Amino acid sequence: MKACGLVVEYNPFHNGHAFHLEQAKKTSNADIIIAVMSGNFLQRGEPAIVSKWARAKMALAAGVDLVIELPYSFAVQKADRFAYGAVALLDALNADYFCFGSEHGEIEPFIETSRFLLENEQTISQRMKAALRSGVSFPSAASAAIEQVIDQPLPLDTHAPNNILGLSYVKAALELGSSIKPLTIKRTGAHYHDQDVTGHIASATSIRRIIFEEGKSISTLSHVLPNSSITELVEYNKQNKQLHSWEHYFSLLKFRLLTMSHTELASIAEVEEGLEYRFKNAIKEATSFEEFIKRVKTKRYTWTRLQRAAIHILTNTTKEQLITSGQKPAYLRLLGMSEQGQTYLRHHKKHFSLPLVSKISAFSHPQLSLDLKAADTYQLCFDEPLRSQALHKEYATIPIRV
Amino acid sequence: MKACGLVVEYNPFHNGHAFHLEQAKKTSNADIIIAVMSGNFLQRGEPAIVSKWARAKMALAAGVDLVIELPYSFAVQKADRFAYGAVALLDALNADYFCFGSEHGEIEPFIETSRFLLENEQTISQRMKAALRSGVSFPSAASAAIEQVIDQPLPLDTHAPNNILGLSYVKAALELGSSIKPLTIKRTGAHYHDQDVTGHIASATSIRRIIFEEGKSISTLSHVLPNSSITELVEYNKQNKQLHSWEHYFSLLKFRLLTMSHTELASIAEVEEGLEYRFKNAIKEATSFEEFIKRVKTKRYTWTRLQRAAIHILTNTTKEQLITSGQKPAYLRLLGMSEQGQTYLRHHKKHFSLPLVSKISAFSHPQLSLDLKAADTYQLCFDEPLRSQALHKEYATIPIRV
Repeated sequence: MKACGLVVEYNPFHNGHAFHLEQAKKTSNADIIIAVMSGNFLQRGEPAIVSKWARAKMALAAGVDLVIELPYSFAVQKADRFAYGAVALLDALNADYFCFGSEHGEIEPFIETSRFLLENEQTISQRMKAALRSGVSFPSAASAAIEQVIDQPLPLDTHAPNNILGLSYVKAALELGSSIKPLTIKRTGAHYHDQDVTGHIASATSIRRIIFEEGKSISTLSHVLPNSSITELVEYNKQNKQLHSWEHYFSLLKFRLLTMSHTELASIAEVEEGLEYRFKNAIKEATSFEEFIKRVKTKRYTWTRLQRAAIHILTNTTKEQLITSGQKPAYLRLLGMSEQGQTYLRHHKKHFSLPLVSKISAFSHPQLSLDLKAADTYQLCFDEPLRSQALHKEYATIPIRV
Repeated sequence: MKACGLVVEYNPFHNGHAFHLEQAKKTSNADIIIAVMSGNFLQRGEPAIVSKWARAKMALAAGVDLVIELPYSFAVQKADRFAYGAVALLDALNADYFCFGSEHGEIEPFIETSRFLLENEQTISQRMKAALRSGVSFPSAASAAIEQVIDQPLPLDTHAPNNILGLSYVKAALELGSSIKPLTIKRTGAHYHDQDVTGHIASATSIRRIIFEEGKSISTLSHVLPNSSITELVEYNKQNKQLHSWEHYFSLLKFRLLTMSHTELASIAEVEEGLEYRFKNAIKEATSFEEFIKRVKTKRYTWTRLQRAAIHILTNTTKEQLITSGQKPAYLRLLGMSEQGQTYLRHHKKHFSLPLVSKISAFSHPQLSLDLKAADTYQLCFDEPLRSQALHKEYATIPIRV
C-alpha cells in the first residue's frame, strides 16, 4: 500500500482543503492519505476553533485515512521547525509521498532551492542575523539573506507564503535523508483567497472571521464548508456552548502576565529581546487580545510570532522545556483512522521508526507532557461542569474509527 | 496625642469589631485608634469579601482613625509572622499601646509566657520539629512542645486560639524591643461566637457563610453589622456585581496548577513536603475550591495552611520572593484617615521609623511589588470592563479621608 502525507491544521476543514485532498490523491495515486495535524494550538499562535478530535472527525469524513497529531513542540513553532516535525512524522510512518500546495506548482525548483539553501546554510544564517539586528522581521530577513548569497535568480519566488512553507518541507526531507518523495500542486489566489471567483472556496481565516466577528451562524457557511464540517462545528458548538478564539483565553493570559516576574517571563519560549517588558506593559491597559497584540506590535515582530509567544505564556512552556522535550518527534499520536487507514497500520506499523500511541496512559515522554498540558489549557476556557468533562476527555478518548 | 493600635482583618467589619474598638478606646484611654489591616488576601488564606479600600471605609465609619495596610509578605503568613509584621508597623507608627481580644483577658500572663517562650525558643523549636515529623499539625506541635519544655503549669491556656494569637503579638513586641504597651480585653464565646446569647454579634465567618452559602441578601444582616458596613457591602456589590470568595478564583487556581511543573510549584511559598504532588493530583478532579481542599486535606495540614499555599500559588509568590522582600515591614501604606488621624500624622510622622506611603507611584520596594501583584490578582475575578477599571483603581486611589 502506498501512502501520501499532508501537513494540515484544518481550522476548520473547508472546500479548499477538500480540493487539496482530492488533488493529492490524484497526483500521488496513493492508496491512503495521512494527515499530520496540529493539536489544539496552531502554528500561527492561535487556539484551534474546535478541538483536535473534532477536527480529526472532519478530516476522516472528508476522506483522510489516518490523522496523526503534530506535537505541540513542533506545531507552535516557526515554519522551519513545524515543517521538520511534520515531515519527520510522515517519514517515520513510511509514507511514500507528501504533497503540499504552492504558488509555483512544480516540484523541481523546490528541490533545487532546498539543496542550495542547505549547502549555504551557514552563510545565509549569518546574513539573516545581521538583517535581524537591523530590525527587520524574520521573513523579510530570510528573503534578504537568500538574495544576498545567491548570485543568480532563484528558480522560485521566495516571497510567496506557500512557496516558503513548501521549501521548509522539502528542506526537512533532505535534512532527514528521507526517501519520501515531495509533490506539489498549484494553489492560486482564486482557489484560496478570492471568494468572488469560484464562490465555494474561502480561506479558513475568513471563515473564522465570519463566525467570530460577523457573528453569523455556522449554517450560513454551507457554500464554503463540506456538510460534514458544518455538522461537526454545529455539534461541537452545541455540546460546548462555544467555539474557540483567542478572546476566550484572554483573561487567563492577563492573569498569567500580571503575576509573572520579568525573569520568569523571559524563560518562556519565543519571549526574547526584551519582549517580556513590552508584554507586561501592554497587558495592563489591554481589554482584549486583539488590543493587546496591537499594543505590542512593532515592525520587528510579526503578528504570528507575538501570538505564538502568547500561546507559550498561556501554556507556560519554557525555552528549556522545548529543548529537553527533544529535537525530533518521539512518537506517533493517532487521533483517527478509516478502514483503509487501519489496514495500512496493520501492514506497516512494524516498520515504523517511532512508537504508535493510541492510548496516552500507556506512554510517557516529556514531549507528550507538553501536548497534555496544552490540551488541558485548551479546556480551561469552559465553565464547570463542562471544563472537568473536557479535561477528562483528553485522557479517555481513543482514536476515532470511521 | 496617645495612639492605640489594633491588628485586624475586618472581613467584614461587624458588631463584634465595634465592641472591640470601643473597649480598646476605654481601656487605653488613647486619643486615636490605628488599625493595621490585611490587604485583599487574609491570614487564613482567603480573598477578603470586599477590597481593602471598602474595608478601610467601614473601619473609618466605625471610629478608627488611621488604617494602615499589613503587607502581603506578613498578612498571608503563619500567626507568628503575621503578628510580627503588624506589631512592627504599630511600633514604627509610634503607637503607645496595642490592644487585642483574648480568652484570658489579663495582660500579665501574656508577658510572662512570652518571656518564657523567647528564653526557651531553641529547645521548644527542636521539640516542635520532632512533633511535626511525627505527623501532627503545626498548632498541636507548638502546644505539645511548650508543655514538654515547661516544668510548671503555664499561666495561660495555650490551646485557646485568641490567647495564642495574643502571645504572638506580645512576643513580637518583646523581640522588637519596642516600648509599645500591650493591653488585652476579654473576649468570650458569648460575645464572639454565640448569636443566641447577645443576638447582635456573629463571627465574620458565620456572616460570610450566610451571604455565600445561604445566599441571603446583605440587608438581612442588619442585626449583626453596623449600618455603615451594610451600606458599604451593598454599594460594593452593586458596583462590582459580586462579593469575593475563594470560589471566584477557582478557575484561575486550576489554570495555574494544571500548567505549572512540580518544580515550579515547589518553589511557591508554603508548598512543602511534597504538597506539590497532592495539589496537582487533586486539582484534576476537583470542580470547586472547597472540594479541592477537601481532597488535599490530611491530619498533617490545617485547612488554613492549605488555603494560604493556594493563595501563594494564585499570586505566584515564591519562597524566595518572600525572603528577598525583606524580614521587616519596609513602609507604612496609608489606606485611610479621620480628621484626628490626620492630626496625629501631622504631629508624629517626622518620628516614624518607616516611610509613610500615600501615593504608590512615588515609592518602590520588593515588598510593595508583592502587594501590588496581590491587588492585581484580586481584581482578576471580574469580567471586562470592570476588571480594567479595578486594576487602575489600585494605582489611582489615594488614602480615604473622613
